[in-house]
Amino acid sequence: MSLKRKDLLGIQDMPVEEINLVLETAESFKEVSGRDIKKVPTLRGKTVVNLFFEPSTRTRTSFELAAKRLSADVINFAVSASSVSKGETLLDTARNIEAMQADFIVLRHPMAGAPNILAKLLRASIVNAGDGGHEHPTQALLDLYTLREKKREFKGLRLAIVGDIAHSRVARSNIYALTKLGAEVRVIGPPTMMPLEVERLGVKVFYDMDEGLRGVDVIMMLRLQLERQGIALFPSIREYSRLYCLTPERVTLAAPDALVMHPGPINRGVEIAPEVADSVSSVILDQVTNGVAVRMAVLYLLSGGK
Amino acid sequence: MSLKRKDLLGIQDMPVEEINLVLETAESFKEVSGRDIKKVPTLRGKTVVNLFFEPSTRTRTSFELAAKRLSADVINFAVSASSVSKGETLLDTARNIEAMQADFIVLRHPMAGAPNILAKLLRASIVNAGDGGHEHPTQALLDLYTLREKKREFKGLRLAIVGDIAHSRVARSNIYALTKLGAEVRVIGPPTMMPLEVERLGVKVFYDMDEGLRGVDVIMMLRLQLERQGIALFPSIREYSRLYCLTPERVTLAAPDALVMHPGPINRGVEIAPEVADSVSSVILDQVTNGVAVRMAVLYLLSGGK
Amino acid sequence: MSLKRKDLLGIQDMPVEEINLVLETAESFKEVSGRDIKKVPTLRGKTVVNLFFEPSTRTRTSFELAAKRLSADVINFAVSASSVSKGETLLDTARNIEAMQADFIVLRHPMAGAPNILAKLLRASIVNAGDGGHEHPTQALLDLYTLREKKREFKGLRLAIVGDIAHSRVARSNIYALTKLGAEVRVIGPPTMMPLEVERLGVKVFYDMDEGLRGVDVIMMLRLQLERQGIALFPSIREYSRLYCLTPERVTLAAPDALVMHPGPINRGVEIAPEVADSVSSVILDQVTNGVAVRMAVLYLLSGGK
Repeated sequence: MSLKRKDLLGIQDMPVEEINLVLETAESFKEVSGRDIKKVPTLRGKTVVNLFFEPSTRTRTSFELAAKRLSADVINFAVSASSVSKGETLLDTARNIEAMQADFIVLRHPMAGAPNILAKLLRASIVNAGDGGHEHPTQALLDLYTLREKKREFKGLRLAIVGDIAHSRVARSNIYALTKLGAEVRVIGPPTMMPLEVERLGVKVFYDMDEGLRGVDVIMMLRLQLERQGIALFPSIREYSRLYCLTPERVTLAAPDALVMHPGPINRGVEIAPEVADSVSSVILDQVTNGVAVRMAVLYLLSGGK
Repeated sequence: MSLKRKDLLGIQDMPVEEINLVLETAESFKEVSGRDIKKVPTLRGKTVVNLFFEPSTRTRTSFELAAKRLSADVINFAVSASSVSKGETLLDTARNIEAMQADFIVLRHPMAGAPNILAKLLRASIVNAGDGGHEHPTQALLDLYTLREKKREFKGLRLAIVGDIAHSRVARSNIYALTKLGAEVRVIGPPTMMPLEVERLGVKVFYDMDEGLRGVDVIMMLRLQLERQGIALFPSIREYSRLYCLTPERVTLAAPDALVMHPGPINRGVEIAPEVADSVSSVILDQVTNGVAVRMAVLYLLSGGK
Repeated sequence: MSLKRKDLLGIQDMPVEEINLVLETAESFKEVSGRDIKKVPTLRGKTVVNLFFEPSTRTRTSFELAAKRLSADVINFAVSASSVSKGETLLDTARNIEAMQADFIVLRHPMAGAPNILAKLLRASIVNAGDGGHEHPTQALLDLYTLREKKREFKGLRLAIVGDIAHSRVARSNIYALTKLGAEVRVIGPPTMMPLEVERLGVKVFYDMDEGLRGVDVIMMLRLQLERQGIALFPSIREYSRLYCLTPERVTLAAPDALVMHPGPINRGVEIAPEVADSVSSVILDQVTNGVAVRMAVLYLLSGGK
């Protein structure tokens, strides 16, 4: 079986079989990163361009390592130093990159839908590495990989996603993925951070964290975007933490073997207590490890691999 | 035949046979970038350092890809984060890079003549990637490659270069190259953007764009340096566009099969109308594709290849 | 023989045999960088991450080249664009890098002791590329390599280190190394730049440069940190230069075949006269060349090479 798509734009339109194909393929690539020589010649002579309009060293590094371990050539196209500041449009920048025969453009862009536009107009494979508040599909896929590794089954799994649901592409991609796969998804956060009619995505809404955590198998914390504090969605960080920080006490409300996840970077003491982040329940660093494997699988499958 | 030079500093002192050698060599490298595996071992174990004192993601990326597809190791030496900000001189920086056994230094520098100074004092091959308002030889070479690909012959070809001729290294390198190769070159722009005694370079001057475009086979637009607006060379961008923007109507003044070129990044609606940039006459993206091939050829030939 | 350590954190705790092992190993790697094909497959499939919390293009480039010539995959983790600005702790950042299966983390950090913390908590090999005013071990090792190359013996060698001894990690690492190896070390600088009880490190203190230079075999100048001028340790740069700039006249006070060293980047006319920097006594560029070889040796030995 192979992916019947040129691009990875989001989870919403991805059939369950394709999700499973990525997860299964990632397994063999995870093995590669565990080897002494972490490198396979799969994408030798291919060009991957990381086109990042928002800074994210972590995601960029994960994609860069994935591409390098597949032996591709990688170019980092930084935005601040780029011709974008000279007024060029996104599409012109991308067309130029494609004209240099890039095989993959890994795009992070503040505008929802930006990767979809490129995907329609370019021959290169577009991988969405986060587009505004829309989707972040490789994050959802690495979360799924981690869940499957630890919990085996998605069906019947009870998950709570906690934080700024309304503005989180991580939440959105995970909600699409997890509901598709038969998990029961709860979303927890203050009313100001809850999307309108979020129930229509098939989730249960909780404004009270303690209530929402009761009995769940997985707690997926979202990062509080401290750097976007301009939009005041709550009175203060202290107040937010009082209501929505994952403390050791709150973890005990979940199932005894509940997992704690976070897409990183974590704000210790803001949305997650340090003891929880470092506890045995936490699979935060597993997520990071699995991110490289999942991205290797995505690049491989989009290039026509089976 | 091989290049009898250590460095590529400009087109002015480059004999026609050497220009042709680069163009012919680029042809086989263009084929490499079209392959499934875009990589040859030609410069394996060589070190290419991109030393950029002005930001230009596009040119840097083109050189980086050229070097990587030749299997060289590439280092990007960014200026803002570099020791230059600690007061080190250009020459000391370059000597340090050479002491790390760089084989090539690709230099972009705001000062005309900077690459020539390095070339005299260093053993490494210096490739001028743009020095002030002086030269940008690989841009001219990729323009020539594109012209030859589309028009076969330079002799008798009628070209118009439009824009800020006085401050454009692209214009200067192209004027040197095209007049050498027997083309008829016109320059079009406002008097404030025309170099003194430009006719002595063997070109015809036009201040009226419509008049200058009449019957030409190639229209080469220059980028309006919006970011250098400090030097007010015209009343307003709107006024500039009214007089010198390449509109569909103006294209019809040229020969029926006239080509439209632009070194990029383009300012849509400023110096070029969007419909023109995206029209079949436009070879702007071919220029980008050919840029990688030409730079591969330059690196290869400077390293002693034949 | 092999290194019995996972990390290179400083010279202070490094036995003489290990220092010698690095120097001897560097010799064969220096030969690699002198070859036509400057590349060996030694670290193929290994991942080296340059994690720099202070900008230093020069040191980063040296490590990047060392890693690439050993065929490792290299990731530059820039701090300004990184999640550090989002409030993540050093340890979380490093844990994330390790979770992506980095084999080496080359760390530059403004806080003394930062690499030691990481070394204790991570499995990856930590290489200290400068931590605050503490240590810069690869700089000392490349200085030793250069000295051995030029002077053969450390025993009885008379060295003067000149400048801001108190705030220099280069001075500190070199003092540890040179006194261990039997050299006679003098430190020269104004009282405001001299550490308290510096004599306890086994050095002789001179406040008068002419007196301190008398008869030495090696003059090791330190860079005046012009960019840290906030802390006014002397009345003016002019005054500093008058007292502590290495002029041609001052060089004549040293032994006739004395070497002049400097870790770079040099401030011409501030701490070193241009004629001295460019004289035959100067081994400043040898230091740069040897830096790549020494860093190759360090990466190789830490990975278990013998």
